Amino acid sequence: MRVVPPEFESQRVGATGYRVLGLDLDGVCADYTGGLRAFCMERTGLPASRFPEPRHYDLTRSGWPFSTTQQYLETHRAAVEAGLFRALRPVPGVVECLNELSAAQVHIRIVSHRLFLSGLHEQVVADTAAWLEQWGIPYMSLCFTGLKDSVDATLHVDDAPHMVESFRAVGGRVLVFDQPYNEHLAGPRLTSWIGATDEVLRLFEG
Amino acid sequence: MRVVPPEFESQRVGATGYRVLGLDLDGVCADYTGGLRAFCMERTGLPASRFPEPRHYDLTRSGWPFSTTQQYLETHRAAVEAGLFRALRPVPGVVECLNELSAAQVHIRIVSHRLFLSGLHEQVVADTAAWLEQWGIPYMSLCFTGLKDSVDATLHVDDAPHMVESFRAVGGRVLVFDQPYNEHLAGPRLTSWIGATDEVLRLFEG
Repeated sequence: MRVVPPEFESQRVGATGYRVLGLDLDGVCADYTGGLRAFCMERTGLPASRFPEPRHYDLTRSGWPFSTTQQYLETHRAAVEAGLFRALRPVPGVVECLNELSAAQVHIRIVSHRLFLSGLHEQVVADTAAWLEQWGIPYMSLCFTGLKDSVDATLHVDDAPHMVESFRAVGGRVLVFDQPYNEHLAGPRLTSWIGATDEVLRLFEG
Repeated sequence: MRVVPPEFESQRVGATGYRVLGLDLDGVCADYTGGLRAFCMERTGLPASRFPEPRHYDLTRSGWPFSTTQQYLETHRAAVEAGLFRALRPVPGVVECLNELSAAQVHIRIVSHRLFLSGLHEQVVADTAAWLEQWGIPYMSLCFTGLKDSVDATLHVDDAPHMVESFRAVGGRVLVFDQPYNEHLAGPRLTSWIGATDEVLRLFEG
């Protein structure tokens, strides 16, 4: 069994893991809002101003033209079927930062909730892997799960308020990735990936 | 946040999860040995007798014509590139049993180490999702990771001796899926998926 080096003992995860970064994709690494906005503008012909920067995590409460969750989910499904998860832009600086972290012995564990759509699992996982490959994002684990707080990491990065709360409810360390819809959450907080490598490495130390 | 029903409190995982079955694929759900044997026979022209039922987890120590780990890995890679993960046969009874477990409120979390091949991630994850779909295996989480013992579950099922040991080292409950190469491990042990639903549900209770 692999042995955890003594200098990383405080960063341990499970029997043999250490320096594990649990990394959300949408809203953290990938510009989901921008991608969905582009899809909606193309489909509806409405201007960008009808799809403002969301100040609430729930897009039916953020001024977007969705009156019900069902309507939002139908649009999300249509966008995914049209290849949304291959088309997203990376959040600025994330590719460089993750490559630097990986070089610093960080095990990058992608933890995403993207599999909530029935019938689209194969496309979602293939598009996700293709996107990570396309942008040269290094990763060693790829987990699709809604129960994120039971996938351990030394440090998680997430933007969704309910996810941050559930990680903290079980004693997990979470770095809140700064978005207008999570301003009410306590830090630590990451405002940008640009030049963030040292800051993230310091947080690994506890 | 989702609430754990009181009758499942002893089956809890994380803040909101319960009845989570952490399920390995190769050697547990999918007949990896049989699939690799068929590939090797086709490629080498050697008879099935040259690829005996492995009595050691390491195929270089089980009478297969691999003299080094490197040689085994090259063959594994060639088989995966040729579509091994779509072609595997399910282990008898697994499809029916997992459908029954899913109907009994079990959250099936696939936990596989298949991503150890560089450059093949997209194919591996797509082929895995396609295979699960093709055989009608219900699942709610799909995790590719080598650090399995930090992906929690109420009950794990695995066949690999080192994985069983690492789950137990961190206090996890593991059901050993019976294979000739894991006979030395202490139980509980699952000898077959056929008719196993009640047995698995009892083990969830602790």
